[in-house]
Amino acid sequence: MKKISLIGSTGSIGEQTLDIIRSHPDQFQLVGLSFGNNIETGMKQIVEFQPAMISCSSKEGADKIKQQLQYTATVLYGKEGLIEVASYGAADILVNAVMGRIGLEPTLRAIESGKDIAIANKETLVTAGHIVTELSKKMGVRLIPVDSEHSAIQQCLHENSHKDVSQLILTASGGSFRDRTREELKDVTVDDALKHPNWQMGAKITIDSATMMNKGLEVIEAKWLFDMPYEKIDVLLHKESIIHSMVEYIDGSILAHLGTPDMRVPIQYALSEPNRLDLKGGERLKLWEVGALHFEKMDYHRFKCLQLAFDAGKQGGITPTVLNAANEMAVSLFLEGKISFLQIEDFVDRALDEHKALSSPTLEDIVGVDEETRRIVLSYIN
Amino acid sequence: MKKISLIGSTGSIGEQTLDIIRSHPDQFQLVGLSFGNNIETGMKQIVEFQPAMISCSSKEGADKIKQQLQYTATVLYGKEGLIEVASYGAADILVNAVMGRIGLEPTLRAIESGKDIAIANKETLVTAGHIVTELSKKMGVRLIPVDSEHSAIQQCLHENSHKDVSQLILTASGGSFRDRTREELKDVTVDDALKHPNWQMGAKITIDSATMMNKGLEVIEAKWLFDMPYEKIDVLLHKESIIHSMVEYIDGSILAHLGTPDMRVPIQYALSEPNRLDLKGGERLKLWEVGALHFEKMDYHRFKCLQLAFDAGKQGGITPTVLNAANEMAVSLFLEGKISFLQIEDFVDRALDEHKALSSPTLEDIVGVDEETRRIVLSYIN
Repeated sequence: MKKISLIGSTGSIGEQTLDIIRSHPDQFQLVGLSFGNNIETGMKQIVEFQPAMISCSSKEGADKIKQQLQYTATVLYGKEGLIEVASYGAADILVNAVMGRIGLEPTLRAIESGKDIAIANKETLVTAGHIVTELSKKMGVRLIPVDSEHSAIQQCLHENSHKDVSQLILTASGGSFRDRTREELKDVTVDDALKHPNWQMGAKITIDSATMMNKGLEVIEAKWLFDMPYEKIDVLLHKESIIHSMVEYIDGSILAHLGTPDMRVPIQYALSEPNRLDLKGGERLKLWEVGALHFEKMDYHRFKCLQLAFDAGKQGGITPTVLNAANEMAVSLFLEGKISFLQIEDFVDRALDEHKALSSPTLEDIVGVDEETRRIVLSYIN
Repeated sequence: MKKISLIGSTGSIGEQTLDIIRSHPDQFQLVGLSFGNNIETGMKQIVEFQPAMISCSSKEGADKIKQQLQYTATVLYGKEGLIEVASYGAADILVNAVMGRIGLEPTLRAIESGKDIAIANKETLVTAGHIVTELSKKMGVRLIPVDSEHSAIQQCLHENSHKDVSQLILTASGGSFRDRTREELKDVTVDDALKHPNWQMGAKITIDSATMMNKGLEVIEAKWLFDMPYEKIDVLLHKESIIHSMVEYIDGSILAHLGTPDMRVPIQYALSEPNRLDLKGGERLKLWEVGALHFEKMDYHRFKCLQLAFDAGKQGGITPTVLNAANEMAVSLFLEGKISFLQIEDFVDRALDEHKALSSPTLEDIVGVDEETRRIVLSYIN
């Protein structure tokens, strides 16, 4: 029985994590649960899974939960509560499914408490990859990917020796505007951008798919998760999103992971690996129904954000934090209708141009530069 | 340093095996060598690799070799010589690259002498899978695939647990007639049949690709190599031959092996696994140049030989021996222009219909039924 703490339980990844736990009650037990302000959904989860350690964003939320609770549990709130759930002693593994920078500190505290981390929170590795990987090495805990691309790579690497790898190949669908030229991107609307061809996801990540920044952040994550230099990471356009990613070996062999676009597969694998479990209600991939898989060379001029991410990753230090914060703010401004689609990359580019390099940022540096970058990017429209 | 005995050195797989040994002199040493009547090629190989144990088909051949030999080696001939090379004490591994039934007994003797077997000889597993796998289990030796399909499956299985596998998926190019209907197969010529779209191979295997019997034999091999029931083996049409085969897991994940059509990749992996080596002079797969990979459901009516192979495999015992012997004779008759292309499957079907079942054939039974089946099929044209 694997005991799980889950932070970010009411988001898409959180809900799907609970679906996996629900379908394998003989394998998994939820012992800790944390969410934000969605008390209604969170309370349903509490009633169903009865975790012993609970946290939500606010004191009011926590009070509401305590009133309704029908069993004995610790109910906390705020940043401290989040960290308590993340590092809860009874859990074997933390599933980090929170959005944004808030996921970073709980991850570090969970690593310090000796827990393996199933990591769906991009910011953790993008902004603090050097801190997180060093600490996890020191503590002997594992960082297990939850993203479909990184899970694919983990499965294709398996026990193969690191020195036998010649290249990680992340696949990219190209997002909602994959068939448009840069010229045609000038007047696209928010609604157009939110129509992702293959995956149902939140607004931020759907825009990041359209700009290819999402793939850029995944490249940086891959660098840290698999200890691979950027020169050995490539991105391939593959519009069907059936091949989730690949590993090329020095003998020319390529191992690929294929499947339907179902996030429960990588989530479940993160919890069950190296073993596998039946995916209840999962649809099998029928390649003869798909008919054909297509591939195109990545165009780093067309998808400028991907180039910016590679450059920021290679520069390292604080630069990926600037990339990520500038992008988050620019995407917010786009979603609010305040800037155009192509201005997202302009703003990120400008923020990167203007930032001060810092080679080994502390957690404090990261938080500070993140906030400063958001302020700076916001100032671009005033 | 891995010490290698190679039988069947002057054939296509044999020559490519030597190419791998040649390109990694720090990893591999050839200690035993056996070939048939091609003394000229064999002698060149002897001069280059200087194996201590040598055998060829005939006494005359052996005498010729002894005359030309510039160093001390044992030179034998005939079946006994072949067996001596296969089971040569100085070797760690036997590469069995002989064609036909003649490869069976040397394999068994090599297993008895405790050697791992890199197996490219189809007949060994197709006709005597039950004997070979039982003996190898008893002796604690490994059977390592050399075929690209089975090597692909081995790499996709890796250390994954057997119970987690839901299906092995062998890919099939469809051979030279993949776009023709059964009606259009009636008048095809030997020359047409010998034009395989993807791989350069010998005449027999090229015809077997066109009839899909080659894939059928591979299905039977897969059953024995990976201890998988026929219900968990499927074949998928994939005309580009880029995906060499796949493994589907119970969680819906599919792992696939991709590469250029270069037999040296699986041969080298059989010798180096679980590690990998640089493939000298090998071409990298560029998926963006390939552009698209296509898949179609297998049509077991269109490719009747594949259905016959599945049926024979499921029936087991002596039946796969009948399948294989009838097919070899029928293909010979087709290549000699004595029967039509579609008569190949008719002859195999008839031989299977008429044969007497035998559930646990001995090596003697297999040799006897093989010869009898060839005589019977030959009699169909008289």
